[in-house]
Amino acid sequence: MAGTTTHPASRTRSWWGWGWADAHPDDAECTAMGALLPGTLARPLPVPRVRDLRIDGPAVQPPPSLAHLVTADPDDRAAHAMGKAYRDIARALRGRPGRIPDLVARPGDDREVADLLDWAGERQVAVVPYGGGSSVTGGVEYRGDAHRAVLSLDLTAMSRVLEVDTVGRAARVQAGTLGPSLEDQLRPHGLTLRHFPQSFEFSTLGGWLATRAGGHYATGRTHIDDFVQSLRVVTPAGTSASWRLPASGAGPSPDRLFLGSEGALGVITEAWVRLQRRPGHKASAALAFTDFDDALRAVRDLAQSDLAPANCRLLDAGEAALSGAAQDGSAVLVLGFESADAPVTDRLEQAVDLARVHGGRRGGSGAASSAAGGGAEAGRADAAVTAWRSAFLRMPYLRDGLARMGAVAETFETAATWDRIPALIAAVRTEVGAAALEATGHPATVNCRLTHVYPDGAAPYFTVLAAGRPGDEVAVWDDLKAVASEVLHRHRATITHHHAVGRDHRPDYDRQRPDPFALALRAAKGALDPRGILNPGVLVD
Amino acid sequence: MAGTTTHPASRTRSWWGWGWADAHPDDAECTAMGALLPGTLARPLPVPRVRDLRIDGPAVQPPPSLAHLVTADPDDRAAHAMGKAYRDIARALRGRPGRIPDLVARPGDDREVADLLDWAGERQVAVVPYGGGSSVTGGVEYRGDAHRAVLSLDLTAMSRVLEVDTVGRAARVQAGTLGPSLEDQLRPHGLTLRHFPQSFEFSTLGGWLATRAGGHYATGRTHIDDFVQSLRVVTPAGTSASWRLPASGAGPSPDRLFLGSEGALGVITEAWVRLQRRPGHKASAALAFTDFDDALRAVRDLAQSDLAPANCRLLDAGEAALSGAAQDGSAVLVLGFESADAPVTDRLEQAVDLARVHGGRRGGSGAASSAAGGGAEAGRADAAVTAWRSAFLRMPYLRDGLARMGAVAETFETAATWDRIPALIAAVRTEVGAAALEATGHPATVNCRLTHVYPDGAAPYFTVLAAGRPGDEVAVWDDLKAVASEVLHRHRATITHHHAVGRDHRPDYDRQRPDPFALALRAAKGALDPRGILNPGVLVD
Repeated sequence: MAGTTTHPASRTRSWWGWGWADAHPDDAECTAMGALLPGTLARPLPVPRVRDLRIDGPAVQPPPSLAHLVTADPDDRAAHAMGKAYRDIARALRGRPGRIPDLVARPGDDREVADLLDWAGERQVAVVPYGGGSSVTGGVEYRGDAHRAVLSLDLTAMSRVLEVDTVGRAARVQAGTLGPSLEDQLRPHGLTLRHFPQSFEFSTLGGWLATRAGGHYATGRTHIDDFVQSLRVVTPAGTSASWRLPASGAGPSPDRLFLGSEGALGVITEAWVRLQRRPGHKASAALAFTDFDDALRAVRDLAQSDLAPANCRLLDAGEAALSGAAQDGSAVLVLGFESADAPVTDRLEQAVDLARVHGGRRGGSGAASSAAGGGAEAGRADAAVTAWRSAFLRMPYLRDGLARMGAVAETFETAATWDRIPALIAAVRTEVGAAALEATGHPATVNCRLTHVYPDGAAPYFTVLAAGRPGDEVAVWDDLKAVASEVLHRHRATITHHHAVGRDHRPDYDRQRPDPFALALRAAKGALDPRGILNPGVLVD
Repeated sequence: MAGTTTHPASRTRSWWGWGWADAHPDDAECTAMGALLPGTLARPLPVPRVRDLRIDGPAVQPPPSLAHLVTADPDDRAAHAMGKAYRDIARALRGRPGRIPDLVARPGDDREVADLLDWAGERQVAVVPYGGGSSVTGGVEYRGDAHRAVLSLDLTAMSRVLEVDTVGRAARVQAGTLGPSLEDQLRPHGLTLRHFPQSFEFSTLGGWLATRAGGHYATGRTHIDDFVQSLRVVTPAGTSASWRLPASGAGPSPDRLFLGSEGALGVITEAWVRLQRRPGHKASAALAFTDFDDALRAVRDLAQSDLAPANCRLLDAGEAALSGAAQDGSAVLVLGFESADAPVTDRLEQAVDLARVHGGRRGGSGAASSAAGGGAEAGRADAAVTAWRSAFLRMPYLRDGLARMGAVAETFETAATWDRIPALIAAVRTEVGAAALEATGHPATVNCRLTHVYPDGAAPYFTVLAAGRPGDEVAVWDDLKAVASEVLHRHRATITHHHAVGRDHRPDYDRQRPDPFALALRAAKGALDPRGILNPGVLVD
C-alpha cells in the first residue's frame, strides 16, 4: 500500500489496524492476552488481507487534468475505507469493512484541493477529508448511498512547515503534516507545538484542528483550539483565510466555526499555530491513593491551584494495574511538571504536598529534573510514571491484539463539571459493566482515568474490555456504546471531550447540541457546501 | 430618567455622557482641560438636556399583554438612543443624537424576552439589545429606516446570580447583571468572576459576552470568552441552551457562535461562568524606560515567560505623562501580580529583573504584598501604579469634559503579532497625527499603551486628543477614524481587540472577515432571525 510522504519508507502502515504493521502483537502475544479475559477465542482471528476483500472498480474517473493526483489502487483505497475505532478493526477482522472509497486523491496545494472539490461537486462525488486516518468515531468513512461515488481526500502530501516566526513563536503549517514531521521541522528553531495526542504519530495538524483535538497535557495549553492564530480553509464556496492575530474581538471567531467542523464545512489546508520553546526542565512523581474519591478531591484541588501541572492523570485501580503503575488496588496519580524557563521541582513538591493532604502516598524513587538547555535526560522518574507512559503508547496495538481474540475493547471519553464526576464515573462502571455481562455472558473490565483536569471539571476516559460474541462483536460494541452514551447524556456529560463526533457519536451529538445552533450550523453548511459533498453524514444533514 | 434596578437610587446616570451625572467635570474643570489643548473652545458647550430634543411619540404601541414591560418615557428613550463613544457624546452635545428608540422594554425572564421578540417580528420592529449602554462602537443604536419602529431591549431587570457551584467554582448569572452587582453577589461565596473591563461599573455580563470583552488583566484569563461554561440565548427561532461543561470536542462550539454576535443572532439571557477565588496576594511595581522599543522587547520577554503577570501595561511617554506615571519622557511599564494561593513577590522580582535586562529602571518605593486571607490592603504600590490606576477609571469622564470643549478625544484599540507591533505603532502615530493636523489645523496628541500582551503579540490601545472644528466634531472624528482604520488594515491588525464591531467598525470588519465566513454567518443569521429584527446593521445585513 502507499505510505505517506513523511513516514519512513522502510515501515508499512497497517491497512486495518493501528499504526505500523510490524508493531502489532504476534499470534502468541494475542493468545496470551486473550487468556487474561474470560470468554475470548482460543486462537486469534487471522490478520485480514486486502486481497480477500471484494473491491469493485471505481464508479467515476477523474478528469485528465486531475488524474495525476488520484489513484484507484485497491490497497490504497482499502487503507482509506475507515478510521481506527474498535468498531473499524472488528469490521475489518470479519471481512466487512466500511464502504471502500472509489478513489484516493493527494492534492499538493490549495488550488488542487479546490479543483478536486469543483469536480466532485459537479459529479455528485462525496469527499471525505483524510489526514492520518486515526479517527476513532467513524469520521473518515462514507455511509449511505446518496452520492455517485466517494473520494478520500488525503492531505498528507501537504506536509510542510512553510514559515517560522521566531520572534512571535509561530509557524505556518500545511494541514497534512503528521505529528513527528511537524516536530522534526520545528526542532531546528528550538520550538515545539507541544501538542501530543495519543495518536500523535499517525495524525495530522489538519485532523487535530478539524476534530478539536486534546493534547497529552492535563492542564493549561493542551487543546489545539488554543494554538490557532489563523486558518486557511478551502470550501466549495471559496477559500476562507482568517488574519493571523494574537486575539481579536471582531464578531464571532471565524476560526472557531471551522475548528470541530470535521470536514463538513470545508477542507482545512493550512494554519498559523502558536509555538513554545522546548521545555528543558521536567519533574514527575506518582502518588498512590487507597480511596478513589480522595484522589478525585486531590486532583480537583490541584486543578484549582496555580500550580498548572503538565500531567495530572489519575488512574483508577484497574487502570493502574493494567498499565503496571500499581498492583495493590491503589489508584495512582501521575504528576508531571515542565518549563522552558526554570526548574519545576518546587512546584512538583508543592503538588505532592497538596496530594498528601488527601491521603496520597509518594510512590517511588522521587522526581528528576534536568537543567534548562543542559540536554540532560529527565529520566529516573517514578517507576509508575514510566510504566504508565509506555503502556499509553502501546495501548492501541494491544487493543487490536485483543480484537483478534474476539474481545470487545472500547475506549470512550467525556467531560463534566466536578459536581457530576463521582456519580458519573460510578454510573458508567455499573451500567456499562452490567450491559457487557448481559450482552456476552461474561464480566467485563471497566476502567477509568482522568486525562485532563480543569478548575471546573475533568475529562474521564473509560476503557472497557469485554468478551465478544463470535462474529457478533460489532453488535456487542453497538450495545455497549448505546448504554455508555445514555449514561453520559443523563449526567449531562459531553459525548466527546476530544475524540470528535464522527458518525458513531452523531445521534448523541444531536441530543447535546442546542436546536437553534443546529439550525445555524445547517444554514452555514448550506452556504459553504451547497451540493452537500463534504463528509456527508457528519455533524449535519 | 429611569435608573437600573441595581445601581444606587441616589445617583443618576448621565443620559448623554459616561457614567454618573454627578461625576462629570464641572465647567471650570472643563475649561482648565481645554486650555491644555490648542484650538479648543473658550468655554464649554452646555450639558445637553433631553427636553431640548424633539422626541416624537412612539410609532407603535405594545400589546396589552406586554405593556407592563415597556415604557415610552422620553427620558428613558433618550438614554437608550446611543452608546458612549466619543462620536455619541459629540452628537448629543450638538443636539443631534442618534435615532431615539420608540420604546424601551425591560423583560424579567426568558419568556418575556421571547414574547417581545415574537411581537417585534410580527410588527417589523427592530430590537436593539441593551445592557449597560457602554458601547463605544455604535452597538446599541439604530441606523436606517427599514423597520417600522425601534425597541431598545434593556436587560438590566435580569440582574441576579441564580446559582453558585462552590465545588466547581461557577455561577449561573442573568445577562443583565452589572459588574458591581455581580461581584457583590459573588463576594459572600469568596468567589469572583475577576473580569474588570474599564466599563465594569456600567456594563453587564450579557454585554461582555455579546462583544467578547477583554478584562483588565494583561495576560492569562482575561477574555470573557474563556469564562463561559454555557449560554442561554433567546432567538426568534427558539431558545439555545448549551450544556454546562468544562470542555467539549463535539462539533464547532455553539457558545463561540454567540460570543461576539453583538445581539444580531439572539439575545443572551443567561450564562454559567467560571469563577476564581479572590486573590489575597498582590504585588506591583513600575519600571521606567528611556527607549520605547527596549520596553517593547521587555514586555515581549515577559509575555513569553512563565511568569503570567496580572498587569503588564506599557505606557508610552505621552500616556505616562498624561496619567501622571512619569513626567520625564520615559515610557512606563506597570507590572502587577496576583494569586489566591501564595505570595507573588518572587514572581514580581523575577519580572523586574527581566525588565532590567532591557533597560528598565525601578520607579518607586517597591512592591507590596498582602497575606492570603489576611484582609490587609495591598497598598503602597509604586506611585506610578497608583497614578495610572486612578487616571484609568477617571478617563472616560475627562474625555466627556474635553468633548464639551469642542475637542476630539478618541480611543481605539487593536491587536497584532509581535513582528508587526513596532511599525504599526509608528504608523498610527505618524498618519493619525498628520490627519488630525490637516483636519483641524492644530497638532494632535497620539498616545499609545499596550493593554494586553500575549506570547505571540500584543494589544496596543491609542488615545488621540485633537482640536475639533466647531460644530464639525463628528466629521473630524470620522476622518481620523478612517485614517486609523486604514493603517490597522494595512498592517493586518484587527479592527477591534475587545471593543466590538458595532456600526462604527462595520466597514473594516467586512474587510477583515473572510468571505466564506461572511456567507456562513449570513446564513446563520437568516436561520435564527429570519425577519431581520435583531440589532439590524450589526455584523451582517
